[in-house]
Amino acid sequence: MKKKKVVIALGGNALGNNLPEQMAAVKKTAKAIADLVEEGHQVVISHGNGPQVGMIHIAMAELNRLYPNFTPAPMSVCVGMSQGYIGYDLQNSIRTELLNRGISKPVSTIITQVCVDPYDEAFSNPTKPIGRFMSAEEAHIEEKRGNHCIEDAGRGFRRVVASPKPLDIVEIDAIRTLVNDGQIVIACGGGGIPVMRQDNGLRGASAVIDKDFASAKLAELLDADYLIILTAVEKVALNYGKPNQILLDEMTLEEAKKYCEEGHFASGSMLPKIQASMEFVSHRSGCRALITKLEKAKEGILGKTGTILHQ
Amino acid sequence: MKKKKVVIALGGNALGNNLPEQMAAVKKTAKAIADLVEEGHQVVISHGNGPQVGMIHIAMAELNRLYPNFTPAPMSVCVGMSQGYIGYDLQNSIRTELLNRGISKPVSTIITQVCVDPYDEAFSNPTKPIGRFMSAEEAHIEEKRGNHCIEDAGRGFRRVVASPKPLDIVEIDAIRTLVNDGQIVIACGGGGIPVMRQDNGLRGASAVIDKDFASAKLAELLDADYLIILTAVEKVALNYGKPNQILLDEMTLEEAKKYCEEGHFASGSMLPKIQASMEFVSHRSGCRALITKLEKAKEGILGKTGTILHQ
Repeated sequence: MKKKKVVIALGGNALGNNLPEQMAAVKKTAKAIADLVEEGHQVVISHGNGPQVGMIHIAMAELNRLYPNFTPAPMSVCVGMSQGYIGYDLQNSIRTELLNRGISKPVSTIITQVCVDPYDEAFSNPTKPIGRFMSAEEAHIEEKRGNHCIEDAGRGFRRVVASPKPLDIVEIDAIRTLVNDGQIVIACGGGGIPVMRQDNGLRGASAVIDKDFASAKLAELLDADYLIILTAVEKVALNYGKPNQILLDEMTLEEAKKYCEEGHFASGSMLPKIQASMEFVSHRSGCRALITKLEKAKEGILGKTGTILHQ
Repeated sequence: MKKKKVVIALGGNALGNNLPEQMAAVKKTAKAIADLVEEGHQVVISHGNGPQVGMIHIAMAELNRLYPNFTPAPMSVCVGMSQGYIGYDLQNSIRTELLNRGISKPVSTIITQVCVDPYDEAFSNPTKPIGRFMSAEEAHIEEKRGNHCIEDAGRGFRRVVASPKPLDIVEIDAIRTLVNDGQIVIACGGGGIPVMRQDNGLRGASAVIDKDFASAKLAELLDADYLIILTAVEKVALNYGKPNQILLDEMTLEEAKKYCEEGHFASGSMLPKIQASMEFVSHRSGCRALITKLEKAKEGILGKTGTILHQ
């Protein structure tokens, strides 16, 4: 099989919910990534950061509450911190797993900013919950600071931010240079630090970019052959969980579009993965998106399992 | 003047003590860096992280205190977070300042791990205070966790960690590749994430690496022409602050050694900067270290001010 350029998007379940969980989870993740590297593929890694940025966001909010001279950390700063935190563990475990197999290859993390459109309609309808549950009183204080909150099914209030579409990756040149040199790169962590262009500057946006869409953009800009979106299931299903469930080996763009319209995929779950795959696959013929679970990535790229999306 | 490869080590005063201060400080810092880039020099940036990692360390400790399911974040993780936080602001402000001058050049931050020796004598004598002041009772709890604490001149107790010497930079290949491509790189933030080799793995060390020594190692491994250590004074002085003070334009390695032995430089202040400069300059002839203040970096490299150390 020809060696491929692969962008692999790790879900939150590949990283665990706290420090010891992350330490353990990244070891398993590193094995799956090393499998692909060992096959000769060129691998670029992006990852989610839900639990991690949540943890940092809560820590920084408590810091501000306890010591008001520390001003609140905006979401963009928390994402930057989470990239450093996750990247450190991830690059470490991949490096070790490769060395265990006798492969010496540089692995590094690039702090990545991703541009969004200030007029993205997502900003008028923030939907992504972040941080801990709050009382009505605390939510009121957040609202006065200009942050949106919603009530979450009897469990209290949570802050919500927008999830706009990625337009561009600011550090793409650095990422590309390392990839072209045959190195392994971790980039666009947590969907990237969301920023908006303002003259020659970039301003942090109160948002969280979906990591699958950011990964699709990364794969497009790097002209990758494959976008692999890892999730909890081995294959995408129609009529998921019902008696008439059908597991899909592959689908065309046209079919994917039809299935989306028919409502087969849950929003906030499989739907954004399908949509991100469609975005990537539609940008040029020949490239493919693979949706499968972590342990099946190697078999999936050989066409043995998972669901392939192509033009 | 021939174009030089320059590693520039920013001190804490170039970054500010909290989020708004950092935002303002990096703008000034970016101007000084852009001055060097505009002259055609190839610039690699490292930086301290004292106030920033302190802030993150306190935030993560409070998080653990309030929500014990979040385990305490070790120093290595806090340094990783601080690299993401500072790198984001710094790469952003340098990028903008360059664009304002019509220069379009990639700027990125590499999450950097720096190896230390587990038998470094610094581990048996931890001296670097981190985090907030604690009561005797809190210090006692920290001690029981295996962390060292000292009493600080009536102001309470503080945790102290070791400050071992940097042996190697794990991500040096990635840094070198970007530098050789003519890109601007931020690396070794806060002296790097301190790690110790263990078989094929790297284990986080409870330590803080001096950023000037880490910068000297970075400059050596990149085969830089100049190491610029920025500080609060324009020139290094003998008999500093006394009536017989002498400002130095330059000194040889031999002279520097003599001045150190004569006790001219304060430990924890000018002394580590001189020692780091000596480390770098001694590795090959022709390379130079420059100690000066931020605003004078451009003039300093032209030989107009600052203190030059050479063989």
